[in-house]
Amino acid sequence: MKNNFHTLKSTPIFSTDSETRRERDLLGERDVPADVYFGIQTLRALENFQITGIALNHFPCLVKALAMVKKAAALANGALGYLEPVIQDAIAEACDEIIDGKLHDQFLVDMIQGGAGTSTNMNANEVVANRALELLGHTKGTYTVVHPNNHVNLSQSTNDVYPTAINLAILLSYNDLVRSMEALCIEFDKKAETFARILKMGRTQLQDAVPMTLGQEFAAFAATIREDVARVKELVTLFREINMGGTAIGTGINTDPGYRQLVVKALSEISSIDFVCAENLVEATSDTGAFVMFSGVMKRIAVKISKICNDLRLLSSGPRAGLNEINLPPMQPGSSIMPGKVNPVIPEVVNQVAYQVIGNDLTITMAAESGQLQLNVMEPVIAFNLLQSIRLMTQAMHTLTQRCVNNISANEQHCRQMVENSIGLITAVNPFIGYENATRIAKQALVTGASVKQLILEEGLLSEEELIDILAPEKMTQPRKVFYTNPT
Amino acid sequence: MKNNFHTLKSTPIFSTDSETRRERDLLGERDVPADVYFGIQTLRALENFQITGIALNHFPCLVKALAMVKKAAALANGALGYLEPVIQDAIAEACDEIIDGKLHDQFLVDMIQGGAGTSTNMNANEVVANRALELLGHTKGTYTVVHPNNHVNLSQSTNDVYPTAINLAILLSYNDLVRSMEALCIEFDKKAETFARILKMGRTQLQDAVPMTLGQEFAAFAATIREDVARVKELVTLFREINMGGTAIGTGINTDPGYRQLVVKALSEISSIDFVCAENLVEATSDTGAFVMFSGVMKRIAVKISKICNDLRLLSSGPRAGLNEINLPPMQPGSSIMPGKVNPVIPEVVNQVAYQVIGNDLTITMAAESGQLQLNVMEPVIAFNLLQSIRLMTQAMHTLTQRCVNNISANEQHCRQMVENSIGLITAVNPFIGYENATRIAKQALVTGASVKQLILEEGLLSEEELIDILAPEKMTQPRKVFYTNPT
Amino acid sequence: MKNNFHTLKSTPIFSTDSETRRERDLLGERDVPADVYFGIQTLRALENFQITGIALNHFPCLVKALAMVKKAAALANGALGYLEPVIQDAIAEACDEIIDGKLHDQFLVDMIQGGAGTSTNMNANEVVANRALELLGHTKGTYTVVHPNNHVNLSQSTNDVYPTAINLAILLSYNDLVRSMEALCIEFDKKAETFARILKMGRTQLQDAVPMTLGQEFAAFAATIREDVARVKELVTLFREINMGGTAIGTGINTDPGYRQLVVKALSEISSIDFVCAENLVEATSDTGAFVMFSGVMKRIAVKISKICNDLRLLSSGPRAGLNEINLPPMQPGSSIMPGKVNPVIPEVVNQVAYQVIGNDLTITMAAESGQLQLNVMEPVIAFNLLQSIRLMTQAMHTLTQRCVNNISANEQHCRQMVENSIGLITAVNPFIGYENATRIAKQALVTGASVKQLILEEGLLSEEELIDILAPEKMTQPRKVFYTNPT
Amino acid sequence: MKNNFHTLKSTPIFSTDSETRRERDLLGERDVPADVYFGIQTLRALENFQITGIALNHFPCLVKALAMVKKAAALANGALGYLEPVIQDAIAEACDEIIDGKLHDQFLVDMIQGGAGTSTNMNANEVVANRALELLGHTKGTYTVVHPNNHVNLSQSTNDVYPTAINLAILLSYNDLVRSMEALCIEFDKKAETFARILKMGRTQLQDAVPMTLGQEFAAFAATIREDVARVKELVTLFREINMGGTAIGTGINTDPGYRQLVVKALSEISSIDFVCAENLVEATSDTGAFVMFSGVMKRIAVKISKICNDLRLLSSGPRAGLNEINLPPMQPGSSIMPGKVNPVIPEVVNQVAYQVIGNDLTITMAAESGQLQLNVMEPVIAFNLLQSIRLMTQAMHTLTQRCVNNISANEQHCRQMVENSIGLITAVNPFIGYENATRIAKQALVTGASVKQLILEEGLLSEEELIDILAPEKMTQPRKVFYTNPT
Repeated sequence: MKNNFHTLKSTPIFSTDSETRRERDLLGERDVPADVYFGIQTLRALENFQITGIALNHFPCLVKALAMVKKAAALANGALGYLEPVIQDAIAEACDEIIDGKLHDQFLVDMIQGGAGTSTNMNANEVVANRALELLGHTKGTYTVVHPNNHVNLSQSTNDVYPTAINLAILLSYNDLVRSMEALCIEFDKKAETFARILKMGRTQLQDAVPMTLGQEFAAFAATIREDVARVKELVTLFREINMGGTAIGTGINTDPGYRQLVVKALSEISSIDFVCAENLVEATSDTGAFVMFSGVMKRIAVKISKICNDLRLLSSGPRAGLNEINLPPMQPGSSIMPGKVNPVIPEVVNQVAYQVIGNDLTITMAAESGQLQLNVMEPVIAFNLLQSIRLMTQAMHTLTQRCVNNISANEQHCRQMVENSIGLITAVNPFIGYENATRIAKQALVTGASVKQLILEEGLLSEEELIDILAPEKMTQPRKVFYTNPT
Repeated sequence: MKNNFHTLKSTPIFSTDSETRRERDLLGERDVPADVYFGIQTLRALENFQITGIALNHFPCLVKALAMVKKAAALANGALGYLEPVIQDAIAEACDEIIDGKLHDQFLVDMIQGGAGTSTNMNANEVVANRALELLGHTKGTYTVVHPNNHVNLSQSTNDVYPTAINLAILLSYNDLVRSMEALCIEFDKKAETFARILKMGRTQLQDAVPMTLGQEFAAFAATIREDVARVKELVTLFREINMGGTAIGTGINTDPGYRQLVVKALSEISSIDFVCAENLVEATSDTGAFVMFSGVMKRIAVKISKICNDLRLLSSGPRAGLNEINLPPMQPGSSIMPGKVNPVIPEVVNQVAYQVIGNDLTITMAAESGQLQLNVMEPVIAFNLLQSIRLMTQAMHTLTQRCVNNISANEQHCRQMVENSIGLITAVNPFIGYENATRIAKQALVTGASVKQLILEEGLLSEEELIDILAPEKMTQPRKVFYTNPT
Repeated sequence: MKNNFHTLKSTPIFSTDSETRRERDLLGERDVPADVYFGIQTLRALENFQITGIALNHFPCLVKALAMVKKAAALANGALGYLEPVIQDAIAEACDEIIDGKLHDQFLVDMIQGGAGTSTNMNANEVVANRALELLGHTKGTYTVVHPNNHVNLSQSTNDVYPTAINLAILLSYNDLVRSMEALCIEFDKKAETFARILKMGRTQLQDAVPMTLGQEFAAFAATIREDVARVKELVTLFREINMGGTAIGTGINTDPGYRQLVVKALSEISSIDFVCAENLVEATSDTGAFVMFSGVMKRIAVKISKICNDLRLLSSGPRAGLNEINLPPMQPGSSIMPGKVNPVIPEVVNQVAYQVIGNDLTITMAAESGQLQLNVMEPVIAFNLLQSIRLMTQAMHTLTQRCVNNISANEQHCRQMVENSIGLITAVNPFIGYENATRIAKQALVTGASVKQLILEEGLLSEEELIDILAPEKMTQPRKVFYTNPT
Repeated sequence: MKNNFHTLKSTPIFSTDSETRRERDLLGERDVPADVYFGIQTLRALENFQITGIALNHFPCLVKALAMVKKAAALANGALGYLEPVIQDAIAEACDEIIDGKLHDQFLVDMIQGGAGTSTNMNANEVVANRALELLGHTKGTYTVVHPNNHVNLSQSTNDVYPTAINLAILLSYNDLVRSMEALCIEFDKKAETFARILKMGRTQLQDAVPMTLGQEFAAFAATIREDVARVKELVTLFREINMGGTAIGTGINTDPGYRQLVVKALSEISSIDFVCAENLVEATSDTGAFVMFSGVMKRIAVKISKICNDLRLLSSGPRAGLNEINLPPMQPGSSIMPGKVNPVIPEVVNQVAYQVIGNDLTITMAAESGQLQLNVMEPVIAFNLLQSIRLMTQAMHTLTQRCVNNISANEQHCRQMVENSIGLITAVNPFIGYENATRIAKQALVTGASVKQLILEEGLLSEEELIDILAPEKMTQPRKVFYTNPT
């Protein structure tokens, strides 16, 4: 059965002929290529987890977050006297390089991994240790000087480092998300203004209802996404609560009593984000509620943007046998067989992103439910899905804004004709002619194909001047004083 | 906090003043109303599980299935000499009454319950025992003669009885499901025939594509549901494999070596369903794969019927500002504020049933994943959701057939006009005038609003006779010999 | 195929022989039983929607909410002069009766229904109208005096009444939810105190990790649920934003400019809830984001409580071949075949409720995504699932508190023995003997079965006094000053 | 906002200085790098869809499948005289190269894309056309000789090519899936044999139940996965039904009546898979039921393998404070802070894959439900998720087999001690001492901590010989003749 299974693409290709250094861990010794910065534990993880082919460095925000956490711990340990200044500085400098975008090619472990993130943490520990060693003039692997566990990981456990790094990675990427949402709102608002006087039929249950303006419709799109900007800003604050200092299970075993406050403070300074220490570190260590909550908001955004894209596709359906109220900008030929066909490809791709985000939310939910006792070992798949959802949605919003909404145009005349031709006008006239008359006229219009206006005039129920006033667009699309002539 | 929590409706209201009999179990003694057929263990379950307010007897098929299993076990035990004939007969007769629809008001435990179905099994054991006692001339509670555990449950465990009863309940209700699906197919086919010559625009991505007949569209609805009838029939056979005789964990502890075959045979005869014994009873006892699989099919049906209902709502949108190709029969006034409005309420309710079934599938999935070691303790919520899904879908299909599809009519003239007015015609003409010409004509039509036909005639690209032939409905809606004049 | 489909239980059984009154609507005339308060439109809905068998009155909070909304509208309409005082008062009085719990047996439409809630709204309109008529001394059906549409539904549309009533129903039921959660937290905290000095092994990835107290474990349960109380309180405020006054599509057609503020104020007074008018009524009319968000919180609660129940089941596993750290109170005999077996039935039922709530969340998500243009027609299935989730979770929390957590006891000695016997102690000793020694001792303990303490003493790495100090429970379970002797 | 959005990694980096060729399409002209094989439409797609950063060539099976379909169409068109032999041959040769793994670096469009797969189809059309041109001695872009649409895509539409290619891609990758599942079954069976005589406690609801052998437990693992092999083999046949020849909407517009059979036959020969033509091509063109069904099976596999991995983690919990019945092979150090800790990392990663597959299933479900009228435009996200699920599960099964199950060992003595110490033995003795005695002994054992055996002997209920016989492992773990001494 050899070769049936994929050696996935992101797996590092290091020739076995190359120079190596020997490292060892609890399980024994292994040769690691001499030129790589990661060590034996990363090597084992690369072999153990050939799953998605998507490595840690697919999410630069996560790699940076890990480096920030490592630097914060080094500073806290240094301040308490647990790390010599020279070691502390070397570690901090190595971390700074990673924060600056260097060495990301050394973060290669698969995003979906067993071990609750231990391999991610060790990948970071090993890379930082070896880079620190270089900075101190030592060769890689001289762990007696700077050790991945004893120095880089000092006072830490995967169980506080890893969730903290995920929180930070989300906080680092959420700004782009918010900006892409706000840009979309601005664009919808611009269109709302442009379309403010275009009268069209409002539809409920896909049936002609009552008139509105196209501007009102686009303003509602802006309003609904803007609400989610508020929700995102509110709920992202959950990630500012971290469990650094809890170590293995939240009891803080093997940490100095002063460490917790120092490391949180250091991380806040490094990241310019105002972190706080979780009140109950035992709870914080096993809990993944913040991920579930934030993924829930991502799901809500997905639901809303999917609804909007469905609407854009409905409104632009046609051009002849559809609603044809608006035109989306053509982005690519729509068909290899049908000349001249152009499709709403941008809303379509956004719909699909929405479904992906909703599916990801389920993965996150199931993973969160699987926590057991003092830890949730499924955090890697949570991190993978949540970071992916944030990125996908950011890209989708940006694409929708720049490649669709900004160039939407309206078919004003067609919109107006549909209103004038519509039986739905009867609702506006209803308070002035009574429900009995209104229902009769509506039925008659449907059967004969005549217009509501025409039938009312023919019957002399209202004068032309009255009708013009009643059906004035600005009066039909907002509340007004109404006089009920015999409401039954 | 008294009275804040619901004493849910289906909880039996038996006055505490009424006469009682004293029963006891592992945990001690309790007074049970003298006139009820259930006993102490059911009483405890009623107190412990006040969750949904939906009792076992909400699903008569499940109550009948339990009685059939109990009867089968009694016959097998009798044949092996473990039950005296008189006891066996009394139990069998009590079961027959339940199978005939009697005593269902005694099956009151909440559908969602802890204990892996033990309370359901004990509810059945107690009712059967007490009814058997009555038939033998004893008062209820005389368990020395007929004991719920030692006689009615002999050679059984909840862990084989309960999943077997669920299997059987599904098999008992699936016929109605299949019949409702088949009736819908027949109705769609009738419409396909009626609409066979109505030409309309086919649409892809909500954009005008190429012509088709309305009959083809409805025939596709029939075809896609008919496929699912086949799938349902195929996969329901999974439920014919049962684990009777496995008792607690599938090892068959405390059963006679001959029992397994006898009880399966007896159940087959009682139910007229050809059951087989699972090959690996340990696997069969903890596995819930058949429920997951069948719920997966229910989900597929839900996806398909939801798509169909979405289409019906799109095609009937309007009447003036929508596609307006078909008319659904009006079932109720559509609005309290808009005179004359009628809505597609039947497809709408079916869509919602589809979402319920899909949500139920997730509940079933999570419950199935939670099995541990030798048992899946979450079976009650699986049973509740799967039986509900089957019933909801049955009702939805039936409602859709009888209150919507059977009275759909078409707006033939409007359909044809949209085709003739459409730019999509250009695809049919494409092979005869070349892609370059076709694209140019299409663009011109879009910009000027002119018809494709007219433009082709004006340019003299084809004669009127040729056009009539090319655009003949029966030729445009199926393959034909085409001559590519200069395919570039 | 007659009789194959269920006439579901909650459908009203009114004999066709009884006296009737004739009513009519857009579709024609029908005879309604003379003694029922609902009218022709409810009758049609009962026939059209035989789906779940669960009627509106399964959720008393929803029926009350509808009455409150109707009353608020009547007061606003009266204040503006659109309703005569006598009519206004009669409507308000009829509503008060329903708010007091009367006439609920007249709210019979199926919870899952087409028409976006129109049938629910009309059921309320008809019952209120007929009761108001009675109060005014008229016979039921005298709609010229009080008309369901023209008076009770005045200035309203289903599209603002129905979502507002759902919001209100949630707000009415959420107090019970919060109280049940808080009661659970209190109970967990009590146990945390009781168990504060019981030392036990903490476990990560189901492997022995480091010591903690059982009190810390239970305190974490309290903390995690308490966080959700905060989330629930935060997010329930979304429901205080309502769209009354938007009527059909949010443009407020056929309402007086002063109506909106008045009706919101009236509803606030009637319900003692501080409602506000949505900023963008067009958006608010089609948006279901608040339901998605709140269901997301319910999902998060489900995830957390399911994790807790999984833990309770793990910790109480045994009694001999499991972890056996705690004892759950026995609530019912656990097996019909295994004498003496008792099962964790209460956590089990809570797990299942959690899965139901998570499945319901998916149904809500899909329904929310299906909104189209100016309305989301799938709101009924959203309301059904969200109200059910709230109730199920309330009952589950209550049951868990009262029938399980309050009587949990600990096996203190067994807990301590597992710690003392554990290799995990090595982590506490690690800073004092160095990582190399620690790893060696750990391996040796695993292979030989010896205790870590014993091996350290044998090797003379630490004195007995030192060991006693290092392994003191209160020191192992929180941070402390550590001296790293040769950290490599 | 520049630089805030990712130019994702897989986007081709072609310097803008490089030589270009000019191409044009419906929307105008663009310069394409001279050395790439794809053309203007792929270029537009690369710009339009910067979503996941995962390109078509992440799934080599999909690229190969596209080439097979293109070749089949060329052969069918050639046979019917629509393509000159020299063109047909050049296209076929280009396709063969791709089938052989060449030119995959040219398939760069994002897996999630709008346009229902048109960009994927055009990417294939353009690469094949340009490679065919090269083979004929022309420069790339000489589309008058071989045109992506007019020649390579002749008689085709994205709407038949794309779903057919997905079907084929699944069929190409499913063999690896089945092989990985079968290998796992074999390994489980081997262990079942090795562990055939190891007696252990069976557990239901995590409570001690009755004895079984560890071999029975592992045999059940094998059995449950083997069942799914059967399901997969059954249901994968759904993909053999394809809609080639349906073109745009299934009516076969612009295809020769003989084409359909020829292209299906050609594809069958090229792929060695026995394809059949869908009966109703209109249905087949919009239907995605087969994807939903197969994803449902993937979900079932996920549920089962997740349950198995949960069991493996439970059974190997400890080493001192857990069940500790089996040992998983250590694959990497388990902790940076806890010396000597080893974790079940392989089952953990498999659990996470299961959650991913279940989440993917939801994405597929929602996408499938979104089909409208004659097409499901969401097929790209379906293809992405289904192909990913198949690959992830294949890798997971393989990893589980090779890095975990093959080296599991048992703690035989500890297993046996737990049985002997267990109160669960009472069930085996029950038929011989009566239920009353059994319950009493069980309670006594629980309270006093004494063993069941000892208590029975002390009371003289059975002789030691009888007890030895009754409790013989091979007798307790299967059915046997039992003599009920006074069953009450």
